[in-house]
Amino acid sequence: MKSDIEIAQSAKMLHISAVAKKMGLGEDDIDLYGKYKAKISLDVLRRNENRKDGKLILVTAINPTPAGEGKSTVTIGLAEALCKQGKNAVIALREPSLGPVFGIKGGAAGGGYAQVVPMEDINLHFTGDMYAITAANNLLSAAIDNHIQQGNVLGIDSRKIIFKRVMDMNDRALRHIIVGLGGKPNGFTREDGFMITVASEIMAILCLASNLMDLKERMGRILVAYDLGGNPVYCKDLAVNGAMALLMKDAIKPNLVQTLGNTPAIIHGGPFANIAHGCNSLLATKMALKLGDYVVTEAGFGADLGAEKFFDIKCRYGKLKPDCVVLVATIRALKHHGGVKKDKLNEPNVEALSKGIGNLEKQIENIEKYGVQVIVAINKFVTDTQKEIECIKDFCVKKGVKVDLTEVWENGADGGLELASKVIATIENNKSNFKVLYDVQLSIKEKINVISKEIYGADGVEYSPSANKQIAEIEKLGLDKVPICVAKTQNSLSDNPKLLGRPTNFTINIKEITISNGAGFIVALTGNIMTMPGLPKIPAANKMDIFEDGTITGLF
Amino acid sequence: MKSDIEIAQSAKMLHISAVAKKMGLGEDDIDLYGKYKAKISLDVLRRNENRKDGKLILVTAINPTPAGEGKSTVTIGLAEALCKQGKNAVIALREPSLGPVFGIKGGAAGGGYAQVVPMEDINLHFTGDMYAITAANNLLSAAIDNHIQQGNVLGIDSRKIIFKRVMDMNDRALRHIIVGLGGKPNGFTREDGFMITVASEIMAILCLASNLMDLKERMGRILVAYDLGGNPVYCKDLAVNGAMALLMKDAIKPNLVQTLGNTPAIIHGGPFANIAHGCNSLLATKMALKLGDYVVTEAGFGADLGAEKFFDIKCRYGKLKPDCVVLVATIRALKHHGGVKKDKLNEPNVEALSKGIGNLEKQIENIEKYGVQVIVAINKFVTDTQKEIECIKDFCVKKGVKVDLTEVWENGADGGLELASKVIATIENNKSNFKVLYDVQLSIKEKINVISKEIYGADGVEYSPSANKQIAEIEKLGLDKVPICVAKTQNSLSDNPKLLGRPTNFTINIKEITISNGAGFIVALTGNIMTMPGLPKIPAANKMDIFEDGTITGLF
Repeated sequence: MKSDIEIAQSAKMLHISAVAKKMGLGEDDIDLYGKYKAKISLDVLRRNENRKDGKLILVTAINPTPAGEGKSTVTIGLAEALCKQGKNAVIALREPSLGPVFGIKGGAAGGGYAQVVPMEDINLHFTGDMYAITAANNLLSAAIDNHIQQGNVLGIDSRKIIFKRVMDMNDRALRHIIVGLGGKPNGFTREDGFMITVASEIMAILCLASNLMDLKERMGRILVAYDLGGNPVYCKDLAVNGAMALLMKDAIKPNLVQTLGNTPAIIHGGPFANIAHGCNSLLATKMALKLGDYVVTEAGFGADLGAEKFFDIKCRYGKLKPDCVVLVATIRALKHHGGVKKDKLNEPNVEALSKGIGNLEKQIENIEKYGVQVIVAINKFVTDTQKEIECIKDFCVKKGVKVDLTEVWENGADGGLELASKVIATIENNKSNFKVLYDVQLSIKEKINVISKEIYGADGVEYSPSANKQIAEIEKLGLDKVPICVAKTQNSLSDNPKLLGRPTNFTINIKEITISNGAGFIVALTGNIMTMPGLPKIPAANKMDIFEDGTITGLF
Repeated sequence: MKSDIEIAQSAKMLHISAVAKKMGLGEDDIDLYGKYKAKISLDVLRRNENRKDGKLILVTAINPTPAGEGKSTVTIGLAEALCKQGKNAVIALREPSLGPVFGIKGGAAGGGYAQVVPMEDINLHFTGDMYAITAANNLLSAAIDNHIQQGNVLGIDSRKIIFKRVMDMNDRALRHIIVGLGGKPNGFTREDGFMITVASEIMAILCLASNLMDLKERMGRILVAYDLGGNPVYCKDLAVNGAMALLMKDAIKPNLVQTLGNTPAIIHGGPFANIAHGCNSLLATKMALKLGDYVVTEAGFGADLGAEKFFDIKCRYGKLKPDCVVLVATIRALKHHGGVKKDKLNEPNVEALSKGIGNLEKQIENIEKYGVQVIVAINKFVTDTQKEIECIKDFCVKKGVKVDLTEVWENGADGGLELASKVIATIENNKSNFKVLYDVQLSIKEKINVISKEIYGADGVEYSPSANKQIAEIEKLGLDKVPICVAKTQNSLSDNPKLLGRPTNFTINIKEITISNGAGFIVALTGNIMTMPGLPKIPAANKMDIFEDGTITGLF
């Protein structure tokens, strides 16, 4: 088998204006970034306002193993297969972050024969959206420290600055830093830290904004600090949200690329899936719904986090009505949930599989609570045995849920034809009864309670003293009537990564509550969430290279 | 008079592929970045290897006042005027940095009716070169700290890490920081600091590299730290220069835009003019020389710094042979050199002008030492009086130097027609006898001596104990046979910003010597050079905004 970059570099790409043309877009609707990338003008959305939306298919997964279950690969392969079935399908995906690319992952644009291309550009700078976010974020940070340095008219309390600097890099040394050292010309000394760019609230805002003016308005609402009297200081008090919007004028436009099989893919935005909602921009999804009859998209982490936020945050804000969910599972991961150790996952073990299948069961039940049809997609590995496959199939039949084996990584569109047929049939024969899980008018604790009990299967929720204090503060400011974004381990339905399968008799422990007031959600943290990853012992970057003839190695 | 952004936004731009076509470039020679920006493939250089180069005109200036003397404006206006005279002229310019744009300057793409457009894009993210440099720089920084964290096989001495992180922002709080706080998972605690991106050695390397493989090789040679035994540690020891080159694969391609009058402008690279050599990339200049019959370019700061480095570093490495120098002066600045205070510069004062003209005289003499013809361009201000203008003209006539009044800021090409005629005549009637000032085989001190005496007019040079130690160290490593890059105030020919006009009887004081081993020069610092600017009390960013119809304010 060839490496991902070898497959990607031998792809027969169409000029991106030809891909755009297939979607009904003219020369003036797109801005080219080289021959194979483009940004789509937001005028396209305005022009098609009255056009009927396509069908929306969400690809999500069971609680994953560290290797991931192949959501992006299934998303890409399914869309290609839908096209092969004669449907006009469009993909909506997140943008990769440079940090993980140089760290462990080496790339995040699908894999095997289900990739988006040009994968090297998508994985590296793409069209510069990450940098625009970084610049807007860091302009605000510089403005905060400069305001204090220049007399501090707002009385900002340098011990209570919430808004952090960002960099699109895995750099653990920047997690906790002291800035402003070296005397008067260099500002007041204070504690600070960098997050990775995808953790910036500006990324979350980009992904929920409806246009540039909405983006500017929301950035103005970011709660950046408290003053010495304990009152909130917002971004707009520093008068830089206009300049920040100027920096974001191109970043707000969704990006168009294609799959190996020339299916259009709109890739835009990529917020963290823990402290933020973890799915591509609303604008990208809306654009895809106007341009495609079938839109395939994905949400980060497992369904308990990713799909829940997709439904309760993104669909709520965007008034989206998902038509079908594809729930990706692997036999390896279900055996892992059944207690099998990593080095034994390649051995057949139907007993462990049956035990671990509770995780799949709970995720299916969860999605059904939202009134959306679910199809299980088993992402096939060479080590899977017929008996194991039958075990899952039997389970799904008993559960009354459609199931299909996909081999898109190995075979591209051809590996997903059966899944595509099932998706088409499901959508044609069922009407979506989508509804969100909770009312935002509930109190913060009531909302967290609903998610914890209904989705995670917890008995209850406990709050740390500081979380209680933070809730009181947000309620006092009257900022509490927004959806909840839980930051929790992706490895378990609970907040304990070691509780595998379908855990019961557990409590969710909320350690901190913060507000992303610009994005419009409250973050409930169940532990210390790492917002700046580190590089591993041998970073993927060490294997990357480019040669005189343009050959690239190390992106996989 | 309209503001710069108003003039720029009402420009009648050609599609950039039409500008490229005028230069003989086809569709495959460029990569579009929207409709008005493109990157030019390096294949164009290879294909035209045997084509005769155009004529090279350097625009430089006397020691400037803080407001600047209008070098970029004259560069742009002169090229437009050359085109109007029927010549095939191409501009080569530096890329602006976001830091100063948000700080004081608000923009750096010329001014008035002599601008490059789209100015808002050029001033903001442009084609992402700054971000590629930032990412490559910070990947190396992350790799250094990660190497130490993961066992430190190379034995890097965390007290002797030279290579710093960068950000394209004016952010004084990041000048001196402590990183790696918070315990074992966050790395070893050490002192560090951020520079602005244009101060990165990678920027200097980009501007001197001849192709991507040369860039990779040079980045590998960056001296990043010393080990605990005192031995040098280079970038390539950390095995990330391949990944860094991958990040730079598009940034190495020169960018094509146009002036208000549709003259092609190649804008690429923008290294600091103090700790680096301060001119656009060698690739941009070489590309312009292959595509234009007349190439107009500029160098940072005054001629004593900018032109000296242009000649002794850039022309030496690139084997360029400049044909003519345009030396920009303003009557205001010469009165300033004659001792007039800032608030009196608008009043006529021929006496002070005659006194300050020594600065112009010395800069003319300096350029003549390189064997290049010089033309003085007086950049006209409304407050200039006829008597003052005559005073400069008389001086130039006596000195045997051509002089001309330009009004390109107010009148665009029409304001520079006379200057263009003089440039054409000078080039047609004279052969360039260009030669560099010194031999790189001289010792470090001998080289600094030649520059200080010949160009600055100093009596001698004094070295701090640490500079002496650093020189010994570089000589021990055998890295000393490269050009010198002096970091010195731009406001005086001396190293004291208060010594105006043409100072005599002074000594140059070298405080520090560092090496940019990848770029290929030794930096001699005459004082503390600020490599991370700060924002002013009211940053230009505070006035910037963008509205629903796309109108932009605050870029000027």
